[in-house]
Amino acid sequence: MTRPIIGRVVPERWRTTGATAPGQRTVGEPGTARIAVDLLGGDQAPAVVVDGALRACRADPSLHLTLVGPADAADAVLAALKPGDRRRITTAITPTDTISGAVAAVAQGRADALVSAGDTRATVLAAARELGRWPGIRRPALTAVLPTVAGRVVLLDVGSSVDPDEETLAWHARLGAAYAAVVYQVPAPRVGLLTIGTEPGKGDRLRRALPNLLVDLPLPGGARYAGLVEGGDIVLGRAADVVVTDGFTGNVLLKGLETAYALTRPPSPDKTPPPRAALLLGVSGTVVVCHGAAAGPDLAAGIALAADLHRRASVAAIADLLRYSEVSHD
Amino acid sequence: MTRPIIGRVVPERWRTTGATAPGQRTVGEPGTARIAVDLLGGDQAPAVVVDGALRACRADPSLHLTLVGPADAADAVLAALKPGDRRRITTAITPTDTISGAVAAVAQGRADALVSAGDTRATVLAAARELGRWPGIRRPALTAVLPTVAGRVVLLDVGSSVDPDEETLAWHARLGAAYAAVVYQVPAPRVGLLTIGTEPGKGDRLRRALPNLLVDLPLPGGARYAGLVEGGDIVLGRAADVVVTDGFTGNVLLKGLETAYALTRPPSPDKTPPPRAALLLGVSGTVVVCHGAAAGPDLAAGIALAADLHRRASVAAIADLLRYSEVSHD
Repeated sequence: MTRPIIGRVVPERWRTTGATAPGQRTVGEPGTARIAVDLLGGDQAPAVVVDGALRACRADPSLHLTLVGPADAADAVLAALKPGDRRRITTAITPTDTISGAVAAVAQGRADALVSAGDTRATVLAAARELGRWPGIRRPALTAVLPTVAGRVVLLDVGSSVDPDEETLAWHARLGAAYAAVVYQVPAPRVGLLTIGTEPGKGDRLRRALPNLLVDLPLPGGARYAGLVEGGDIVLGRAADVVVTDGFTGNVLLKGLETAYALTRPPSPDKTPPPRAALLLGVSGTVVVCHGAAAGPDLAAGIALAADLHRRASVAAIADLLRYSEVSHD
Repeated sequence: MTRPIIGRVVPERWRTTGATAPGQRTVGEPGTARIAVDLLGGDQAPAVVVDGALRACRADPSLHLTLVGPADAADAVLAALKPGDRRRITTAITPTDTISGAVAAVAQGRADALVSAGDTRATVLAAARELGRWPGIRRPALTAVLPTVAGRVVLLDVGSSVDPDEETLAWHARLGAAYAAVVYQVPAPRVGLLTIGTEPGKGDRLRRALPNLLVDLPLPGGARYAGLVEGGDIVLGRAADVVVTDGFTGNVLLKGLETAYALTRPPSPDKTPPPRAALLLGVSGTVVVCHGAAAGPDLAAGIALAADLHRRASVAAIADLLRYSEVSHD
């Protein structure tokens, strides 16, 4: 049976099935998620990735992993698993460029999603090249979720687009709105623009120009532009469900708040904080990025996020909401 | 007796006296600090400023305030003080442009320092125009101090220079180093550059260009460039004593962390957290800026900071460390 190349599948076809596209060979039972894991991604790789893979496997009996990296790291995972669980592991032995290897596994249909804590720029470029970007997307958006007093806030971009233009941030507003509507079922997401004061005219050149563009921008999922928000609103969560910013500011704020919450406590009423991992939105596939400084539990949370997004066919549903029906390739 | 115009006094002369320049008329006893307060600065002005002024007066018997704003707000302060304390209040009744009024009080020697929670841009421009910028300073730096696990970190800029060039950030590195050396007596301050990954080549255009400039930059106070730092380092405080960034990113991060710390707790071992107020470095005078959303205690802390910096002649000492001997005016 011929497998569709996931990057070229039209989003509507993805959405119809949930876990698999029509005609796709299933590897295990329904609900199986096959995640490609970059064993060499992250400052403490491969040790933390081995740890994260093991934690993820033990927590989710329907998880299958494709381990992309050197043989000794893959062997460390296999050796630590019970014999019965080893069949859930596939190895893709490659000593270098494990990011491209993990992306290729998804592009060739051998995995449903990938997780890497490696270089963000390399991951974004490989994903855009091999999986294809959605039409109109110049730069995909790394999309994080943070706990707030009022619940959760979607923050994008957190590291992909560090010198964006206005059009890129307008696209990210659309992507973030669709993410909140699909993944968190927010009825009519409020999309805020992160800046340094809520009076008109505050902010840098980019932020002074954007409100005029955002106020008339059609947004998916019944979303609306909710105006300017400040750094504190990412903690309080009252002003917006989705906050748009450049990847430089978003990354700095995300790492600052995550570090603060790890030391004190998150402000959220949720018992389970959102994973410290981000979804790359705007490419035709499920690509999850963890911090370079990620620990084993963060990698496990990233793998669980990827599996959950795949099982819910979230990326296809987001694409569907944005009414894409084709995929562009570089 | 002719009073020197403070903005034109060479810094060395400031430093010789502490509270007052040579030949300057003293208003009260030694140790007196005369602070001009912008009654209309801040989202909740004048109520929060009245509250802050009263708190500051009650906490510091040697504090004199020049209240710049409408008569009813000034009267509210006077009415709430004991009769014996009212002599410590001077009023400068002006219905509008209270920022310029407060700056003028300092420029004309009627006050030793000023505090405003009003529009940051307006304060920076008025201070640069009326007090004069130090030589080489294109844009003064709003300099905040944050609690960290390891103590305190100086963060600049937090809102003055939102579209800086490389040269401006290099100047801010010098200013921040001098601030840490003078105000906190840090022996050899480590100056870090805020970015989104510690490997070379990370960050946006500005941040990719800067390390080459910073690595060879002469810094005051025995300071040295300590390399790239990330958002989490502003919480941990281990990598640098001073962190340099653009005013947009700095403001977003500052407001995010301050809001998080207000809800949970600061990560600092200090019992007294640093004030939520910033010093404008690079102008010839002591100018303290509070957030637009500042509450009464924040205004009081800002006034106390201004008084403390004045009494220690900190701004003059910073200028001295930077070996300035003249002042440029637009």
